[in-house]
Amino acid sequence: MLTEIDRINALIIGATQGIGLGFVKALLQQKNIGTIFATYRNKETSGELFALQQQYGDRLKCIQVDITQESQIAIGIAEIQKSVKELHLAIYCVGVLHEGDLTPEKSLRQINAQNLIYSFQVNSIGAVLLAKHLMPLFKKSQRSIFASISAKVGSIGDNRLGGWYGYRASKSALNMFLKTTAIEYSRRCPKTIVVALHPGTTDTKLSRPFQKNVPPGKLFPVEHTVDLLSKVISSLEQKDSGEFFSWDGSKLPW
Amino acid sequence: MLTEIDRINALIIGATQGIGLGFVKALLQQKNIGTIFATYRNKETSGELFALQQQYGDRLKCIQVDITQESQIAIGIAEIQKSVKELHLAIYCVGVLHEGDLTPEKSLRQINAQNLIYSFQVNSIGAVLLAKHLMPLFKKSQRSIFASISAKVGSIGDNRLGGWYGYRASKSALNMFLKTTAIEYSRRCPKTIVVALHPGTTDTKLSRPFQKNVPPGKLFPVEHTVDLLSKVISSLEQKDSGEFFSWDGSKLPW
Repeated sequence: MLTEIDRINALIIGATQGIGLGFVKALLQQKNIGTIFATYRNKETSGELFALQQQYGDRLKCIQVDITQESQIAIGIAEIQKSVKELHLAIYCVGVLHEGDLTPEKSLRQINAQNLIYSFQVNSIGAVLLAKHLMPLFKKSQRSIFASISAKVGSIGDNRLGGWYGYRASKSALNMFLKTTAIEYSRRCPKTIVVALHPGTTDTKLSRPFQKNVPPGKLFPVEHTVDLLSKVISSLEQKDSGEFFSWDGSKLPW
Repeated sequence: MLTEIDRINALIIGATQGIGLGFVKALLQQKNIGTIFATYRNKETSGELFALQQQYGDRLKCIQVDITQESQIAIGIAEIQKSVKELHLAIYCVGVLHEGDLTPEKSLRQINAQNLIYSFQVNSIGAVLLAKHLMPLFKKSQRSIFASISAKVGSIGDNRLGGWYGYRASKSALNMFLKTTAIEYSRRCPKTIVVALHPGTTDTKLSRPFQKNVPPGKLFPVEHTVDLLSKVISSLEQKDSGEFFSWDGSKLPW
């Protein structure tokens, strides 16, 4: 990933499980990694991440950030700035599809304003707040990547089945935030590439209740998804900034 | 508009000013209109709407609805159901671009989570809550329209200038909500057509601070916009449900 640099500093947001944790593990295996910053929300559910921290010491730094709180994002970024001057890779892996009484709506009847707001906070607003606070860590002359896990169900043009109102709309909003960020970054830190990524259906807590509908061979183990997305990230060019890529490198419609 | 019906019942959401008020005035001139329901949020800013109500009596019914409160939407719809059994036209004209300290962000630095949430509440969530509560008023065998004022700056594919994060993303989310609603309606009330409309830059309070950048001839008086959008609405066919149309009838990209 980003192989022209000797020591890459990376930030994984939402690193305690699923794809985020998978990225941390994969990055820890790479020789050219400097420091990996990994954010978690709850100490109680971060056991596996903390165990990696014990094992890898200073290469992995864990930072507590609830991305619905801008003040926590600001504090987290300030902490990163104490250790490093620049970041080369940041991946937003936070996302909510179901949590507590929030479940993806099968029909309009199940819509609830509070749950919709929460979906926007986690799936959309957190990413753009991060884009705001990360800007000073992306340097003008340095190739960097800001990628965010989006979802094909967030493609308006590709929507044929309906349902999942909050998840779909919050991923569409995320895609717009990323596209708009890509335009602003192209002026302020022009070598930073901003992309939305569709990971495919991955065997994580997020997809677990819906896995029975996934065709055979289409449910990816986390390691496989991380491997595929890492290849997509590695091959990104400047002209790709502001685009929406699937795990196979193909572009997705908005 | 919808000329095959003798008496059309219409609902204009956000009817106290701008395009919403323009639609009310235009509908009041049509002979085949039964009852027009018009929603307002604040009594204090609804003088012009109330004056029309005085003039037109029972043809125009004003209902107080703050669309950020689902309970108020439910009460408003229940009130409509006391007068009529069905609606043939509903147009969501509520939208926020600036209000109090909320202004369209020129850069990421100006982003503020609370303002983003409010933009989603007004520009996106209100419309889908309405779609939820309106469903019983759209009849299976009756051609009806649920249109919502969106904006071309909500097109992700068309975004070249950047900025306006909250407005853009909330309109993208609105577009996804409408597309998803169109799919659900196609099963439950299959003759109801759901569309997103781009009105062009119209001389309203919303656009006022930004009118100096509009090329000559491209700032539409409200009456002109309403006339153009009415033509678009009249010519809608079933296959157009779930699409995004500009004032000139052309389809816009997501």
